[in-house]
Parts: sequence; C-alpha cells; structure tokens
Amino acid sequence: MRLALSIEYIGKKYYGWQKQNGDSINTVQHHVDSALSKIANHKIKSICSGRTDTGVNALNQIIHFDTISRRSDKNWIKGVNSNLPDDIRLKKIYHVDDNFHARFLAISRTYKYFINTDVNSTIFNNAYTCVLNDKISLSKMKSSLKYINGVQDYSSFRSSGCQANTAIRNIFSTSLERNKNIITFTITANAFLYHMVRNITGTLIDIGTGKILPSQLKTILNQRDRKYCSKMAPANGLFLWSVAYPRKYRIRYNSESVLL
Amino acid sequence: MRLALSIEYIGKKYYGWQKQNGDSINTVQHHVDSALSKIANHKIKSICSGRTDTGVNALNQIIHFDTISRRSDKNWIKGVNSNLPDDIRLKKIYHVDDNFHARFLAISRTYKYFINTDVNSTIFNNAYTCVLNDKISLSKMKSSLKYINGVQDYSSFRSSGCQANTAIRNIFSTSLERNKNIITFTITANAFLYHMVRNITGTLIDIGTGKILPSQLKTILNQRDRKYCSKMAPANGLFLWSVAYPRKYRIRYNSESVLL
Repeated sequence: MRLALSIEYIGKKYYGWQKQNGDSINTVQHHVDSALSKIANHKIKSICSGRTDTGVNALNQIIHFDTISRRSDKNWIKGVNSNLPDDIRLKKIYHVDDNFHARFLAISRTYKYFINTDVNSTIFNNAYTCVLNDKISLSKMKSSLKYINGVQDYSSFRSSGCQANTAIRNIFSTSLERNKNIITFTITANAFLYHMVRNITGTLIDIGTGKILPSQLKTILNQRDRKYCSKMAPANGLFLWSVAYPRKYRIRYNSESVLL
Repeated sequence: MRLALSIEYIGKKYYGWQKQNGDSINTVQHHVDSALSKIANHKIKSICSGRTDTGVNALNQIIHFDTISRRSDKNWIKGVNSNLPDDIRLKKIYHVDDNFHARFLAISRTYKYFINTDVNSTIFNNAYTCVLNDKISLSKMKSSLKYINGVQDYSSFRSSGCQANTAIRNIFSTSLERNKNIITFTITANAFLYHMVRNITGTLIDIGTGKILPSQLKTILNQRDRKYCSKMAPANGLFLWSVAYPRKYRIRYNSESVLL
C-alpha cells in the first residue's frame, strides 16, 4: 500500500530534508522516517518531492512511502505527530496507487520567499523573512520578472555542488506582491536547481535596491555562469509552498497563510 | 543623566526579565544591562516597568537607567543592539528627567494574549499563540468580561509566590477580538499580580470551551482563592504590549503588529 503525505517543517534546526553525505541524524527526513517506522512497525524510507536545503522551511513537502500496516488516517497522523519534534508536522494523508511517485510525478513546485523591507520591524516578524537595510523598489523588481520565465538554461542561478545533469528548467510563473512591509516573491517551475530560488531572490533584491539594473537580469542569465548573479538570499525566508501532481491524485492544499 | 528605553524580546529562552534568586545569567535583564554597561563604559543596573515571567514576550518593556556617558541616540541603539542576542532588541530611547521611574510612574500596563482556535493551523503560527483543541465561543468569553473590571481584590488570579502586599488592582479595560483563527485578549490595569493575566486567560478559555459558565467568573473572583480559577494559560501566548506614563514624558508606541 502506497501513501502520500503532506509535511510541514521549520527548517532552522535542520540540515534540510536530507543530507547526501555524513551525518543524517539532524535532517527532517530522519525524524519523519523514524516516526513513520515506529507507527508502521517496520522500517520506512520515504521519498520526497524535492530536497530542501539547510534552514529552508516547507509548508507542504509531499512524500510517499510503502507500508504493509493498516492504520486509520487519524491514527497515522496522531501517532506520527506524537513522535515528531514540534517543528515538524504531518498534516495530511493521501491514499495513492502504486504508480504514484512524489518526485517523478510532480508537475511543478512552488516556492515563496518573504522579504521584510522594514529594518525596524519588530523582531517577532523576523524569523521567516529576510530583513533588508536598504530601500527597495518593487516596480524595478517587477520589471525584471519577465526575463525569468519559460524553458531556459538557468546555470547562472545554480550553486556549485548542483548534481543535476542539465540546467534547463521551465519556470511557469513568478509574482511579487507587497503587503505592508513584507514583499512576497512566488515562483513556480517544473523543478529547481540547487539554490536556484535563493540565487534568483538575491539578484531581485539587488535590482530592487538599485545595485543592478532590471535589464541586467537578462545579461546574467545569458552568461550561464554563477559568478555573475548576486549573493544568495538567506534560507530562513524561503518556503517550499506546494507541489502539483496529476489531478487524479487529489493532492490539494488549503489556502493557508503563515503569519506574514 | 536619566534615559528610558523601549525593549522588545522573545521570552522563550529566558527566565523572564529578572530572576529573584539564584542564577541571573539567563534573564533578559542580564543581557540588557551587560550591553548597556559595555556601551556606557560603566556598570549599569536598569529598572523595569514590571517583571515579566519565564517565557513571556514583550513588545515594549520600558526601563530606565542613569549614566554619565554621552552618546547619540543612534550610537546607543546601534551599540547596544550589536551586543544583544537576536531575540532582544533596543527599539527606542527617551530622554527623561531625573524624576522619571519606569516602575513607579507607570500609569498602566497593557498585555495581550493570543489564542489560536485552529488546532490544524500551520506550525509557523504556533510560536506566540496558545493552540486549543476545543471549539471556543467568543460570545461566552465576552459575556464574562464585565466581571473583571475596576478596583477589586484579584486574589483568585494570583499564583502562589506572589510578593505583592495587596491583591487589589484596578483593571481599566479588557477586550476580545477575533481575526480568522486568532482570538486576541487585551487587558489594561494599573498593575498585575503574579501570573494574573495568564490565570485570567486560562479561566476565559474554560468559559469559551464551555467547561464553566460565564457567570462563574464572578463566583471565582468572590472566592479570593487561587484554587478556584482555571489552569494558567501558557507563557508563549502572552505579550507585555505597552506601558503608559504621564504625557510629559512623550513615551509613545507605533501601532505595531506582530505576525498574527
């Protein structure tokens, strides 16, 4: 029996979803798989939609696993959550067929990045935002969004250590919205390269603060070289927001809002 | 020269503003006084408007201290904040006369308590709210507010260990507001007893969930005994929001909002 789960986590304390080499204890996956194994009564190794990096948050990470154990949804959720730390939570269970695969069947991933434009904003608002010292122009940032769209080679926004065979990705949509002192950058693509969203966000911030011109985003992209893009934006402002799957799997999300 | 400061802090990691006995290292005051002493170049012991308990947050704790050192406001703020941990911040400086006293001149203190009525609310919203498992009736809670008003003996909401000579306090105003899944309880009084706001909030929650009737709040008050009130609400949902002083000191607050 194959089950898919929606998991949320606060990334701060973890080496991301999964760690490739060395110590894997302090990863989100380690905690989730341990809790699932305990409730299933057999060893479970889950597969995720895409690995999130150290410190990155997730509102809906989708994973799947196979089990021979039968539990009610309620018992899975209650049991697993009572074995998870406070900053990781199992939210929903989806009953899927054996062809479902959290990674290979994902149609698109949506990330959100929160930029806090008020350096004097209360510290209670800073945990999940990148706080800027500089004045930032939303219209300049918006005017550069047209360049990061569609099927292209995104090598310029790929950090060293990226293991993908190709840097070609398909960005389906991007948007920038301001609500009081919070600017939200939303980006949806078929998939992302290593650090791609944070590298793009860092460059957008430099455009907003006037360090580089909006049109330079096109030039940076054409260089196909990481050294031309701006400093990567910090991990704490980034959220894996949702992952889209074929409609038949009915993996839906509430229109949730974090406290921003 | 006497200076007053507005300080904000996330209470989670600290034994409150001040600890009466034993280890005082892990208190907010310890960090604030150390940072002030460093910038002033002489030892400073500040006086606060009122001690907050272990785990309680503050958006505007007002303190005062005397110094012989002359620094620009900007240099005080920059210097002190660079010597404070991330969860404590000096927000504002007020130049006050030598008669000012953060504790004795405070006219009233306002606290806010945040109740989260959605147990499935995302974990990102849970840090500064008390998350409830039960359905809660705002109107029941509201109908009991009339009893906690004015000059009365509030012994029933005073925890053991309270050092106040009298349990008579003057509650100036209370309110309850709902915004989506967050209920905000606001209370302003001349001063508060030990754990008073959290004991009142716990009782209001029991009224909201139907465990006790709204009119029982009056009965509980009349008992003048802590054992009749409900379980104290947890510290993480409580904020010292503001402290009022005579107008001439011009201690004003921005209409700030935390992420709720």
